[in-house]
Amino acid sequence: MNKKVFVSNFPFARFDKTPLEILERNGISYELNSLGRKLKPSETASLAKDFEVIIAGTEDLLPLVESSFQLKMISRIGIGLDNVPIELCQSKNIKVTYTPDAVTPAVSEFTIGLMLDGIRKISFSDREIRKGEWTRPYGTRIGKSIVGIIGLGRVGASVARLLSSFHPQEILVNDILDVSDKILQLQKVIPQIRFATKEEIYQNADIITLHVPKTQHTVNLITSKEIGIMKKTTVLINTSRGSIINENDLEEALRKHQIGFACLDVFAEEPYLGPLKNLENITLTQHIGSCSEDCRADMEREATEEVVRFLRNENFRNLVV
Amino acid sequence: MNKKVFVSNFPFARFDKTPLEILERNGISYELNSLGRKLKPSETASLAKDFEVIIAGTEDLLPLVESSFQLKMISRIGIGLDNVPIELCQSKNIKVTYTPDAVTPAVSEFTIGLMLDGIRKISFSDREIRKGEWTRPYGTRIGKSIVGIIGLGRVGASVARLLSSFHPQEILVNDILDVSDKILQLQKVIPQIRFATKEEIYQNADIITLHVPKTQHTVNLITSKEIGIMKKTTVLINTSRGSIINENDLEEALRKHQIGFACLDVFAEEPYLGPLKNLENITLTQHIGSCSEDCRADMEREATEEVVRFLRNENFRNLVV
Repeated sequence: MNKKVFVSNFPFARFDKTPLEILERNGISYELNSLGRKLKPSETASLAKDFEVIIAGTEDLLPLVESSFQLKMISRIGIGLDNVPIELCQSKNIKVTYTPDAVTPAVSEFTIGLMLDGIRKISFSDREIRKGEWTRPYGTRIGKSIVGIIGLGRVGASVARLLSSFHPQEILVNDILDVSDKILQLQKVIPQIRFATKEEIYQNADIITLHVPKTQHTVNLITSKEIGIMKKTTVLINTSRGSIINENDLEEALRKHQIGFACLDVFAEEPYLGPLKNLENITLTQHIGSCSEDCRADMEREATEEVVRFLRNENFRNLVV
Repeated sequence: MNKKVFVSNFPFARFDKTPLEILERNGISYELNSLGRKLKPSETASLAKDFEVIIAGTEDLLPLVESSFQLKMISRIGIGLDNVPIELCQSKNIKVTYTPDAVTPAVSEFTIGLMLDGIRKISFSDREIRKGEWTRPYGTRIGKSIVGIIGLGRVGASVARLLSSFHPQEILVNDILDVSDKILQLQKVIPQIRFATKEEIYQNADIITLHVPKTQHTVNLITSKEIGIMKKTTVLINTSRGSIINENDLEEALRKHQIGFACLDVFAEEPYLGPLKNLENITLTQHIGSCSEDCRADMEREATEEVVRFLRNENFRNLVV
């Protein structure tokens, strides 16, 4: 008999073994990603082709969904569905679930970490010391900054809440949806938050952080044009998805010091091997925004529970299609 | 005629030129540290020997105070007086001032930055990417952590306030002074703060941050013994002064993975060139806790204003002796 579940995500159950226990307790056979890295689209398609269910990370699932005759369910660990061909799943009657809430606390804390890293040059200073240098770089403070948040979903709103104790001068937020009620709620903890156009944010914010999903409308949201409007000192943060910032344009802008600094956790292609890593005015991390032990455990457990629900024919908790 | 004021601190008036303008507007002649780095004790003594006033950073001023026949005033930029021989100054009638308030916002924000760097391995991840690696290290969250704060002075209390929006499980604080009133005040914004013994902090805290002055009681506060009580996952932060953590003991503990991670902004000898920079489970920064542009500007302006007050025979704002 074929195994039921393929887990493409890496890592999975790295510390907390609960997801494996849930599968075993329910008699569900599974196979893990044994390559110890993010799978390429064709690898996912070939490794998962005989399975009914895939528990997936951000691997591109299009080739799998196109080619598989067995696949009945995709359980996404985390948020962001840009790697899942939703309409095709719908037409092939493949169920898709995700875990949109569990990542929020981890990603939003991490975003504050990248902000402070960028404005105070922490990783930069660490690299310098290891080379025997001691220039004591100057930075700025959140408390003196205008922070721009593009995308006021779960993570964006949580970032705003975390910022409240830092008393930034102003928080300017933008979203394609009507977020006026959400802003009213947030004003109770952080009165200096208000809606702004994207252009207003590019022009005025000292720190800009992106919290949008990857869609056809958000790919290349930030190109040379938008960067050109920003301040020479702007610190640009991205913990959402690669491709939302055009990496070539950013590379050129940082090389020419058109903005102050960038901190990227996400890249168009991961693992990231590109030229941004030759620059000093950038901090690069390995798509670890969600990689807090407690949140990974929650995400993986929730994704696994959705699989159990599917196989027991129960209602899903977070069904996409 | 000799110049009046020697500025030993580096950097000084790097961006904001106000301190120089204040001196010039008041007709006060000055000379800057032209070496572009922190002066050695003997260099400070020899370069400043003919001046009446020194505007100083953390340079050791003992040889100067011992040898100078001219020195009448020391204006310290910043907080911490471990580099000033206070009793000797008193006996030689040398006035000493400092700027204890201006550093607080910069150092406390920076401390949160180091915490997030340590628990989420931001600098570590940046170093790995630049080497072509992609291990996606896991971390923890402030929201799930017990934070220990040793020293509840200006900076320690400000760190607690910044932490409030992260809702840590508990904040355990210790101080040699009676800080019960201060804790009561802080409980209004962060109810989960309480007094604890140092031993309780070493045993229970997931993150430990030090905010004590350097005195004979605090040098070697953290040695192998204290580290031995800590959790294997503890992240240890120091933005106060070097020597408070015994660097040899810390190096050994990190090498043996007795604690999880350390983030140091301060060192027994600066610039730091020692063996900690060969380890991966540590983040090292260049004593830049106070190096936020606004705070440096405030500190330098306040220190310069004290010099003007001295030369005009006016009352000081922050007189030490």
